[in-house]
Amino acid sequence: MTRTPNFRSRLEEKTRQKRSIVCVGLDPDLEAPQFPAFLREGGHPKLEFAKQLIDAVADLVPVLKPNTRFYEPSEWNELRDIVKYAHKHDLEVIGDCKENDIGSTMGRAYSRQFGTFGFDAITVNGYLGSDGVIGTAGEPIFRPWFQRGKGLFVLVKTSNSSSSQVQDLQVMGPAGERPLYATVAELVEQWSSEYEHVIGGVVGATHPRELTDLRELLSGFILIPGFGAQGATAADIGSALSSGKPCIVNSSRGIMYAHARRFKGKFNEEEFAQASREEVLIMRDELGKYLQW
Amino acid sequence: MTRTPNFRSRLEEKTRQKRSIVCVGLDPDLEAPQFPAFLREGGHPKLEFAKQLIDAVADLVPVLKPNTRFYEPSEWNELRDIVKYAHKHDLEVIGDCKENDIGSTMGRAYSRQFGTFGFDAITVNGYLGSDGVIGTAGEPIFRPWFQRGKGLFVLVKTSNSSSSQVQDLQVMGPAGERPLYATVAELVEQWSSEYEHVIGGVVGATHPRELTDLRELLSGFILIPGFGAQGATAADIGSALSSGKPCIVNSSRGIMYAHARRFKGKFNEEEFAQASREEVLIMRDELGKYLQW
Repeated sequence: MTRTPNFRSRLEEKTRQKRSIVCVGLDPDLEAPQFPAFLREGGHPKLEFAKQLIDAVADLVPVLKPNTRFYEPSEWNELRDIVKYAHKHDLEVIGDCKENDIGSTMGRAYSRQFGTFGFDAITVNGYLGSDGVIGTAGEPIFRPWFQRGKGLFVLVKTSNSSSSQVQDLQVMGPAGERPLYATVAELVEQWSSEYEHVIGGVVGATHPRELTDLRELLSGFILIPGFGAQGATAADIGSALSSGKPCIVNSSRGIMYAHARRFKGKFNEEEFAQASREEVLIMRDELGKYLQW
Repeated sequence: MTRTPNFRSRLEEKTRQKRSIVCVGLDPDLEAPQFPAFLREGGHPKLEFAKQLIDAVADLVPVLKPNTRFYEPSEWNELRDIVKYAHKHDLEVIGDCKENDIGSTMGRAYSRQFGTFGFDAITVNGYLGSDGVIGTAGEPIFRPWFQRGKGLFVLVKTSNSSSSQVQDLQVMGPAGERPLYATVAELVEQWSSEYEHVIGGVVGATHPRELTDLRELLSGFILIPGFGAQGATAADIGSALSSGKPCIVNSSRGIMYAHARRFKGKFNEEEFAQASREEVLIMRDELGKYLQW
């Protein structure tokens, strides 16, 4: 299978083909009571967990989002193999690493995430401005990654409650006052326009009103975390979904640990992946009500 | 030697004892032409480099700041040993890791930086609000680290030029308009007041006017990067220094590679640490003109 060169176009194609905007988050914690005990005894529990999950849901979802913080260096080979396995099974992979630095230091970060791990896109923090996202004009370190079609998701309005302390501050602009997150979204648009719109934003499902406003401003993909375990429902984000603009909605624990949550008692932990598939089907259908293909 | 329990008081004590606010940044890059070639051949070049540097400057500086991104996982044992070696030689150690996440994920980050590496303080990005710095009220994950006297430096106004795109935005507040960085500084003060002022801010030396303003707002330590190689001089930051409030001024390449910069031709690379000592002496004296002990 040849891969089209640009993260955005590949992800759009996969969401269309699978009629699904579900993003499966991977936050595997061996010490969590919900993590299947029978996998803990094997040599590579996180890899085995991810493989069974991918096998169960790959036809239903376009994209996987491992949180890199959940993989210790001793597990980085497993993470690399997870990315490869996901690619083989027709998934895009977003590394949720929330990078933030500048210049050559950020160049090292991009090398690790895009190069070593092979992610198709990563999450980044935009507080440092363009130096920490696409580099200043002509920055030689960052450009090759975008030319190879890699993507970014800049944190715009995060799902946690204290995000308001900074992100909701009212900023003065030529058109009057508006929240900081809106100004960051405009920067994202500006940065993205330089690179065929491979740069999108992260906007939490826990902020439906802000999501609706930001959907107006952001033309690229919005990655929407905070669904399920964090409390947001499809109805909460329906108006943003029905815009027809590209987005993906992430659920991590809700999908990973469905056997211990919605399907507690129905599936045992050996059947965790089957429970995940059922959860994804429900989520896909709920979100599907607001989508037109 | 017993260690007083709080990062801020230890750092204040060391700056006073040594009459120095110089922070030595460690950004070792084996591929940089300035990195001493004779060390590259040994088994642990970055550890050996740091040891020689520490031996040469420990009596002249209170604190070391390794940039964690310059240490690959295969070098993490070296980094741990550098922290131990620095502690044995009467230095505080700040891990420059620019962490940013929330809840349990940030808990993992703090465990790695404070626990595994043993840093006395780390740098963090405040864009996510208090959830990503001290945790929400009663957050059980973060509190123990502060109770053990660990410190934080929140990115307030970073030294890079594009920092203005976000950090200089004019924010509306009860007292009128002011830049975002000033509002973030007030959040830092608020967070810090809960923990005996172990939380300070990062403000680049490359923004003298902003530094002067922020010195008014921040009562804890300001970590001032951007000195030397990035172009700022002691005169640029003199007014902030002469306030008498606590700060440290970081130089990385200017000190590490002094043998290939200011002292090119005077010291050969086997004498790199001696050149670093000379550089630190000059920097300490330049900064000292603005300090009263």
